[in-house]
Amino acid sequence: MNPGHPAFDRPGGEAIDRCRRLLDPALRQAVSVLHPWGARMAAFTLGWSDVDGRPADGDGGKSLRPAFAMLSAEAVGGAAESALPAAVAVELVHAFSLVHDDIIDNDERRRHRDALWKAYGVGPALLAGDALLALAVGQLASRPEAMRHLSAALIELVQGQTADMAFENRPWSGPNQVTIAEYTEMAAGKTGGLLGAAAAAGVALGGAPELSDRMWTMGRDLGVAFQIVDDMLGIWGDPGLTGKPVHSDLRRDKKTFPVLAALNSGDRPARALAALLESGATDEESVQEAAALVERAGGRAAARAAADSYVAAALATMDEHLPHATDLRALCAALVNRAR
Amino acid sequence: MNPGHPAFDRPGGEAIDRCRRLLDPALRQAVSVLHPWGARMAAFTLGWSDVDGRPADGDGGKSLRPAFAMLSAEAVGGAAESALPAAVAVELVHAFSLVHDDIIDNDERRRHRDALWKAYGVGPALLAGDALLALAVGQLASRPEAMRHLSAALIELVQGQTADMAFENRPWSGPNQVTIAEYTEMAAGKTGGLLGAAAAAGVALGGAPELSDRMWTMGRDLGVAFQIVDDMLGIWGDPGLTGKPVHSDLRRDKKTFPVLAALNSGDRPARALAALLESGATDEESVQEAAALVERAGGRAAARAAADSYVAAALATMDEHLPHATDLRALCAALVNRAR
Repeated sequence: MNPGHPAFDRPGGEAIDRCRRLLDPALRQAVSVLHPWGARMAAFTLGWSDVDGRPADGDGGKSLRPAFAMLSAEAVGGAAESALPAAVAVELVHAFSLVHDDIIDNDERRRHRDALWKAYGVGPALLAGDALLALAVGQLASRPEAMRHLSAALIELVQGQTADMAFENRPWSGPNQVTIAEYTEMAAGKTGGLLGAAAAAGVALGGAPELSDRMWTMGRDLGVAFQIVDDMLGIWGDPGLTGKPVHSDLRRDKKTFPVLAALNSGDRPARALAALLESGATDEESVQEAAALVERAGGRAAARAAADSYVAAALATMDEHLPHATDLRALCAALVNRAR
Repeated sequence: MNPGHPAFDRPGGEAIDRCRRLLDPALRQAVSVLHPWGARMAAFTLGWSDVDGRPADGDGGKSLRPAFAMLSAEAVGGAAESALPAAVAVELVHAFSLVHDDIIDNDERRRHRDALWKAYGVGPALLAGDALLALAVGQLASRPEAMRHLSAALIELVQGQTADMAFENRPWSGPNQVTIAEYTEMAAGKTGGLLGAAAAAGVALGGAPELSDRMWTMGRDLGVAFQIVDDMLGIWGDPGLTGKPVHSDLRRDKKTFPVLAALNSGDRPARALAALLESGATDEESVQEAAALVERAGGRAAARAAADSYVAAALATMDEHLPHATDLRALCAALVNRAR
């Protein structure tokens, strides 16, 4: 547990912490069935051990998705434990997606340590990712009311990741540039699907499957907000907190929300930004200038406004259907506050 | 359809062909939901199109696993169509595993064409593999009686693949050498799990879930036989038929059954084989000599005997529980006859 982690300094942190205490033994139990080699890689990527398999108190991430599943179950009057299989499943899918993403994006660092592929090689890491996904499916194989949401999220996840990858080959300007609508669909899939599955499976296992479809929509809205905030942290966040190199998205033609919004403004800074990005320059000075131009063209403000608006939509859904879900509401609000 | 394909020259070929006609539209339908880029990669790897997306009459594999699912449903009195979701799922999982295996093993060729990663890059191919797996899970998400077998097979598959990979770092002789028992467990997982899931899900969807556990065991036995035959084809098969470079297993320390059995004989050829393998020589002459020594040390005969014995065990299970399953029985027999 990292006491300096932003998630724990904010409203909702206590509930997340409580969920995390429930999650931890169940997650370790799920991973324990793996082949020793797979188990070692899983323990490394989940922050439980160092690269040699020695126990470590590493940063295993914020466990927001499992908290989402468990607090959703509580919000409909169920016990947090009732959603534990879904909580474990979404955390395993999240871990799987990070392991494969780092291979795909050639990212060497994750959570202040080597990425799994960097530590163990591409082949073993790829297979460890597959193992995490297989374990996730196993958690819910006999629970179709939750499985259908996990399954939908998996498809959304790979579709969103494929779209995100395809965006990298699209131009910064002209008729074939990536639109905000395309970005939103990508983010809803890549990031929203799993949050949607967490909430939908959580209420289903908590005893209110009739609310699952609403919670799925709520989770997807939150996911879009979450991804926009992530994009902002990638440009203006503190690498000491995010654990990722600064400006890596800008260096590799990632179509992030702040940049797309800035380009859309059409003002002089937007045109200068498009020219700079199209030049392909990746030196530190150019990248810093690009970040400054994104801000001057209104990309940062537009991103914050969009994130706030998606969170507001999610909260409205929640207020309508789960008016007394205090902890879940605080968790949602904490998501968008990360950037501030 | 490749009329020269061995599966179609043998008993069971007609039934496989019939299943394949049912499978094809359902498989295309499943893949059609993918992002265009993912769909193009899936079409290439399934043999439907060339690397540029033009329709091709490529070799999409033998579709034995889907036939297994559908003929298992028929064997309990159900319609072949009733097992179609399981048939599509196991074929997608098989395709996923080949795509990821080729990345892990750095294999450049598959079914007489470039491997997917070679054609489209590692990142896109990895993601396309994930997409195939996500679609497979989606096929059975609402069918827990079949899903539990698919889920078990997924875990077995990654466990077997991990064990297989870990074997490559083990010595050829001495107390830490790979045992036949370890090999068998690996093969039952890597190859048997999915055949077991096909048969178990097939009878479950065909109306006899009470037979699923027996069919799971039968499929795993067949899988061990299938893997042993595959190992033999890797040494003595015709690359023109297998589509893979000859002797690639021998070149990279794969612990295959014929080699392990040869080493176990303890005779003079076995000792010469161990010395040759431990020398690490990968030139054509050394590899051919190794293959000859495996045969002289009895590895080929032992492999054939072991494969026959696992098929006999599978057929005995089938005769006990499904005495009138003519097509399914012919399909099982065709598996081990591939090598002859």
